[in-house]
Amino acid sequence: MKYTFGVDIGGTEVKLGKFDGVNLIKKYNIKTNSEDNGKYIIKQICDFISEKIGEDELVGIGMGVPGPVRDGFVFVAPNLGWKDYDVKKEILSYFPNIKVYIGNDANMAALGEKARGGAMEFDSYVFVTLGTGVGGGVVLNGNLVEGAFGGAGEIGHSNVEENGRLCTCGLRGCIERYSSATGIVETANIKRVGRNTRLNDEKVTSKLVFDLAKENDEVAVEVVEYSMNLLAITLSQISTVLNPEAFIIGGGVSNAGTYLLDILEKKFMEKAFNPQKNTKFRLATLGNDAGIYGCAYSVK
Amino acid sequence: MKYTFGVDIGGTEVKLGKFDGVNLIKKYNIKTNSEDNGKYIIKQICDFISEKIGEDELVGIGMGVPGPVRDGFVFVAPNLGWKDYDVKKEILSYFPNIKVYIGNDANMAALGEKARGGAMEFDSYVFVTLGTGVGGGVVLNGNLVEGAFGGAGEIGHSNVEENGRLCTCGLRGCIERYSSATGIVETANIKRVGRNTRLNDEKVTSKLVFDLAKENDEVAVEVVEYSMNLLAITLSQISTVLNPEAFIIGGGVSNAGTYLLDILEKKFMEKAFNPQKNTKFRLATLGNDAGIYGCAYSVK
Repeated sequence: MKYTFGVDIGGTEVKLGKFDGVNLIKKYNIKTNSEDNGKYIIKQICDFISEKIGEDELVGIGMGVPGPVRDGFVFVAPNLGWKDYDVKKEILSYFPNIKVYIGNDANMAALGEKARGGAMEFDSYVFVTLGTGVGGGVVLNGNLVEGAFGGAGEIGHSNVEENGRLCTCGLRGCIERYSSATGIVETANIKRVGRNTRLNDEKVTSKLVFDLAKENDEVAVEVVEYSMNLLAITLSQISTVLNPEAFIIGGGVSNAGTYLLDILEKKFMEKAFNPQKNTKFRLATLGNDAGIYGCAYSVK
Repeated sequence: MKYTFGVDIGGTEVKLGKFDGVNLIKKYNIKTNSEDNGKYIIKQICDFISEKIGEDELVGIGMGVPGPVRDGFVFVAPNLGWKDYDVKKEILSYFPNIKVYIGNDANMAALGEKARGGAMEFDSYVFVTLGTGVGGGVVLNGNLVEGAFGGAGEIGHSNVEENGRLCTCGLRGCIERYSSATGIVETANIKRVGRNTRLNDEKVTSKLVFDLAKENDEVAVEVVEYSMNLLAITLSQISTVLNPEAFIIGGGVSNAGTYLLDILEKKFMEKAFNPQKNTKFRLATLGNDAGIYGCAYSVK
């Protein structure tokens, strides 16, 4: 048999998937060894893969990295200690005869949704993850857009409010500060003050906001509408530039499901320029496995 | 000899260029015949080309159309009376053995700047025209992005101010209402009221605004800063999604030259997320010929 490995590298753990084409055979997790600026990580991964299958069984390795990547070269990945690192070349030094593709982790997750998830029916789409932050990936005609300096798909840092909330990146008004789980909680904590809302009874989480909104808690509904309205503005801007077939919405916040998707789509359509009105909205379906699926798919 | 024709169709005239590769040999203009919902336009153009060169000399026709296009199919072009029209198929009915590419006119102009203009050094860039409106085109890895419904590159209708100025498209707050020649005049007419500025001495045009700004007229400088700041926001948003190598700025407003470009670049850099800080800014150089150059280049 011939197998591909999908490898999603995070700051604390590496997720690996052994794939037959796009079929996931087995998942593994190993602890990320970030000693000495992460110089052992690739060796650690290649050794692990060598233990699992024979070299003649290995067709390719796809890898997702938390940082900007272009043509297999990682510009920087602070969580791993990497800087200006030709990762593709190093993997090929262990396995000279396989196919290797290295990508940004959110971009790989975007591709994963094409392999087996919410984007299967589309060739050109934009994937948006609403988690602690807001991430994304752009797929056009089935291929990832990496960007000139590996910075494509960094949707979370698209400005949506001039001089708005301060972002961890140092800029102000990034959409990440409004439509991520963190941003939604921040909005809730502002709006609930002095109001009659069940948001004052429990620790506020993004899940609580959506759960209460579904039960028509007035303040929770306001918070959801506010965060989804700003996200719809960002998506409408993306749509005027790329006119993708669809937006695929993932990340923990998207567990609010069709309730979230319907509000987002409605607000998007209010702002959509005419050719953009056919844009479809779908939920991501692979959750945390999107990365390894996309990595495996990338070397197809 | 073998020639390509670049054909840029407007509502009142058709510009044609006879090209040897990307070298323009001769330009022509004919009046657009928009009778009967423009059903004679393609015949008119093909007849014209047949008169100019022998069929065995013709390699290809590239055509720019004022409306959304995908795969040679024009969804709608109101100025020509076209709707759901397979233009590529009709051209091939006249010239069965040539290469044909049909694109949106602004997208073709974007490609023209790659053929011979301000984008020659780049493979992935976004072209922005500041004219009566704001248009654009996206080129990635040397290829035009058409969009799922031919609506890619419609940068002018990217929202930059929620509930802002009413646009001709029916939406509010499109960047076109602020950074086009029209938008700049509108801003000037608001800001000059009751102020000591030479903008009160003459009919306000976009050119006058830039000319006075260069002479440090305080109100004119304010108008320029305001319009370029909003444009920089839109370009920074595009950059987080695509991370292009460069923005190429064209259209009549860009005749203000490096003065405009420097202000725009400075404001962009203030808003740019880190991987976007290497983005280059260039002026378009082909003016009204960009369309025919891009059309010729598209069939290369």
